[in-house]
Amino acid sequence: MAEYKAVLGADMGESFGRYTIGNDEAIMPYLTCANLACGFHAGDPTVMRKTVRLAKKYDIAVGGHPGFQDLRGFGRRTIGVDPDELVDDIVYQLGALGAFLKAEGMKMWHLSPHGWLDDMVSYQEVYAVAFIKAIKDYDPGLILVIEAKSPLYKMAKSEGLRVAAVGYPDLKYDTNCKMIGERFMSDSDPAEVAKQAIHMIKDHKLTTVDGKEYDWEAEVLMFHGDKSNAVDTLKKVREEFENEGIKVTKW
Amino acid sequence: MAEYKAVLGADMGESFGRYTIGNDEAIMPYLTCANLACGFHAGDPTVMRKTVRLAKKYDIAVGGHPGFQDLRGFGRRTIGVDPDELVDDIVYQLGALGAFLKAEGMKMWHLSPHGWLDDMVSYQEVYAVAFIKAIKDYDPGLILVIEAKSPLYKMAKSEGLRVAAVGYPDLKYDTNCKMIGERFMSDSDPAEVAKQAIHMIKDHKLTTVDGKEYDWEAEVLMFHGDKSNAVDTLKKVREEFENEGIKVTKW
Amino acid sequence: MAEYKAVLGADMGESFGRYTIGNDEAIMPYLTCANLACGFHAGDPTVMRKTVRLAKKYDIAVGGHPGFQDLRGFGRRTIGVDPDELVDDIVYQLGALGAFLKAEGMKMWHLSPHGWLDDMVSYQEVYAVAFIKAIKDYDPGLILVIEAKSPLYKMAKSEGLRVAAVGYPDLKYDTNCKMIGERFMSDSDPAEVAKQAIHMIKDHKLTTVDGKEYDWEAEVLMFHGDKSNAVDTLKKVREEFENEGIKVTKW
Amino acid sequence: MAEYKAVLGADMGESFGRYTIGNDEAIMPYLTCANLACGFHAGDPTVMRKTVRLAKKYDIAVGGHPGFQDLRGFGRRTIGVDPDELVDDIVYQLGALGAFLKAEGMKMWHLSPHGWLDDMVSYQEVYAVAFIKAIKDYDPGLILVIEAKSPLYKMAKSEGLRVAAVGYPDLKYDTNCKMIGERFMSDSDPAEVAKQAIHMIKDHKLTTVDGKEYDWEAEVLMFHGDKSNAVDTLKKVREEFENEGIKVTKW
Repeated sequence: MAEYKAVLGADMGESFGRYTIGNDEAIMPYLTCANLACGFHAGDPTVMRKTVRLAKKYDIAVGGHPGFQDLRGFGRRTIGVDPDELVDDIVYQLGALGAFLKAEGMKMWHLSPHGWLDDMVSYQEVYAVAFIKAIKDYDPGLILVIEAKSPLYKMAKSEGLRVAAVGYPDLKYDTNCKMIGERFMSDSDPAEVAKQAIHMIKDHKLTTVDGKEYDWEAEVLMFHGDKSNAVDTLKKVREEFENEGIKVTKW
Repeated sequence: MAEYKAVLGADMGESFGRYTIGNDEAIMPYLTCANLACGFHAGDPTVMRKTVRLAKKYDIAVGGHPGFQDLRGFGRRTIGVDPDELVDDIVYQLGALGAFLKAEGMKMWHLSPHGWLDDMVSYQEVYAVAFIKAIKDYDPGLILVIEAKSPLYKMAKSEGLRVAAVGYPDLKYDTNCKMIGERFMSDSDPAEVAKQAIHMIKDHKLTTVDGKEYDWEAEVLMFHGDKSNAVDTLKKVREEFENEGIKVTKW
Repeated sequence: MAEYKAVLGADMGESFGRYTIGNDEAIMPYLTCANLACGFHAGDPTVMRKTVRLAKKYDIAVGGHPGFQDLRGFGRRTIGVDPDELVDDIVYQLGALGAFLKAEGMKMWHLSPHGWLDDMVSYQEVYAVAFIKAIKDYDPGLILVIEAKSPLYKMAKSEGLRVAAVGYPDLKYDTNCKMIGERFMSDSDPAEVAKQAIHMIKDHKLTTVDGKEYDWEAEVLMFHGDKSNAVDTLKKVREEFENEGIKVTKW
Repeated sequence: MAEYKAVLGADMGESFGRYTIGNDEAIMPYLTCANLACGFHAGDPTVMRKTVRLAKKYDIAVGGHPGFQDLRGFGRRTIGVDPDELVDDIVYQLGALGAFLKAEGMKMWHLSPHGWLDDMVSYQEVYAVAFIKAIKDYDPGLILVIEAKSPLYKMAKSEGLRVAAVGYPDLKYDTNCKMIGERFMSDSDPAEVAKQAIHMIKDHKLTTVDGKEYDWEAEVLMFHGDKSNAVDTLKKVREEFENEGIKVTKW
């Protein structure tokens, strides 16, 4: 009998100074990994430190979540960076996060690019090359969390990096199987999210907004803690995974 | 016969984007260590990467040069940071620099606080404690470059940290033996700088602007690369050190 | 019979990019003026534009709310600015806000310094002088909202500026009649806030946390929209003002 | 006999904090207008104030030089701003600069978009519309300085705005008559610059790097003060204009 399993995670540490986004501690009990913002698109050193400590408390695997240096746009606006400059920006962010992990006796497990950076490195070759260089510069042992269908996934794999395919069950996918970035506008129905999550893990498929089916590999599922019903959604997912015999694991 | 020696260094990597300060490569041949800005008071990831590579080329020991997150004030304005927040800001900066050093197969040797941060951690106990915590968090093996007369020097030593007393021969010291921050307004006379440097290393003394003599320990001498005659000054210092039998060493 | 009246306001426009603070639209119906952040300690051009439009919709008098250029510290950390530089920073912020007001066919009525800047210009003479210069530079017709007991209040008055004494009924005042900046930690009891507000307007007095009475002039009362019960508090204040015959006016 | 004339200007106020770019005061005697950075791509409030005062001293017409909020990229990197957000960013910058002009008893004459923003608003319709809206919001009387061949030029004109066609004689134009942004890499030959300037004004043409001739309207010529031979170039241009009977005028 096949054994099903998934790593569950979320972006975290995206508050800044007096500004709060998400409710990291509330969702941590349901997760096994976290992508931590590194002070460029969100987060600041104090937020990073606190979030690292929370991850330690809840025994969650921490990964880097580098983004564009664009707090105002939350890393969601394209910025015409030079590829070499991008390498430097990624290395800088990973190093900064790594220092907090070291200070707390932890290690960095993985990394996941944020927002528009994710899109750019996943689907534009020159930036994919830059991103791979940054990983190798900082730590070639990091697990790269990225969509299996992206050119970056294949490139990273062929370069010998450890790659983990990702799915976002609480987002919608459009008719071309492209993620729709509407996540901040509306909550999702927990039952639907759980269904999509199971579909990704057991059937290796996802359902688009218009009902199409696509092949979809996912080893890790990411959720969004800034949805107001994030906790309910995660509870539902854990419950249904239990029912379906899907084990939730760390890396 | 006594043997005299000194480490020679300068702040570097303080350019930002299209803005340039200093002429790092021109002064590197005369130095054995460099304090690298970490992107808070000056520097950016690309400047850091380039400066790390230059330091490698010239076989210079790199140290961290963290400062306040205040590019506009170049880290020279006091900022009322919370001590815990300061720890986080230092760890962040050291981690970021450390990542570039790792990427280039180098290590971080020392650290030296910049501008007003230097003043604050050297002479205010609550910030001295925070600074020591940050060093221990990141790497307790780092050499802390600081004035021998500062409370931080004694505190760090008693905590088991490796401390290196510093002197600034191309700056002036006022009648109370306090550094005068006029460095950007005028060049210094190379012969006078060399004389002060020798005075610090051989006599363990310095001469103030008004001719007073103070005891002064210095294991490392720092110079300012943004003075227009920085290269001439360093040439003169190296020449006079040669004449006086003072060896220039790495850590 | 004496006639009592008060202007009621709040700091607004303090969101930034994807980060939200306060609920400006919810409290506007209860207010007659608003201090708008100008993009330094909080706010960004888009937030400013939106908030100006809201103020227009609710017919609220808009004032400038300049602060330190310190988003991370939300303008609450001291920054060692040079007084001339402070003049420039204030003029810059007022000009930026004024442009949005002009675009919407409105005018700037008043200004109120934010956070640590408020403390600094109110109680340190060199900065008070700088602040007055900035007002004269930009628009000597602006109403300066400030504590009546501050040196700045007297100085501005003697310079011919229009000054409006302010009270903060939803904050606490300590035994020395100094505001306690605890506002973000806890809500306040609406009935107590209303009582303090009436005390300020009718009796020209306030009650400190330890029950002392101080003389206190207030022409305008400011409230904090980021308290979770801000709307309830304002409703209660308006209700009690009605009962007490205190008129709520615009400038 | 035809009478020839030109307005001569340069970008100014692009220093930031301790960082200096250009030598504004050295070139002002040769110019009749200046585009002042507004603190987004370059400049800060203190730099703006100083530059406005210099412009007053040399009786130069000041215009706004808004750019992207990207100091690190000096406004030369594309940023995927939302058009509405762009309107807000432009209004904000113009307002800030306008406040300094008002403080010095001056007025804003024109505006000229900086770097990538220039390219974007000149040649992408949605951003051209946004830019025109920003001008109308702030001051419909401003002269818009832009390439005559750009769609924005025509659109602004048809909207009733006053438009001034611009040429950059110290830059090169490629074979498609597109400016080459190499200006920071090399100086230009003063004689060649003067020749191109005269070509633009007298013949309404320019010569590309590969010797092609294009029709080119220019009412105002912009130069770059950060070239090391900027002063020599401007002297030469003024001298040759004298010889050719081209009058240098203010707006």
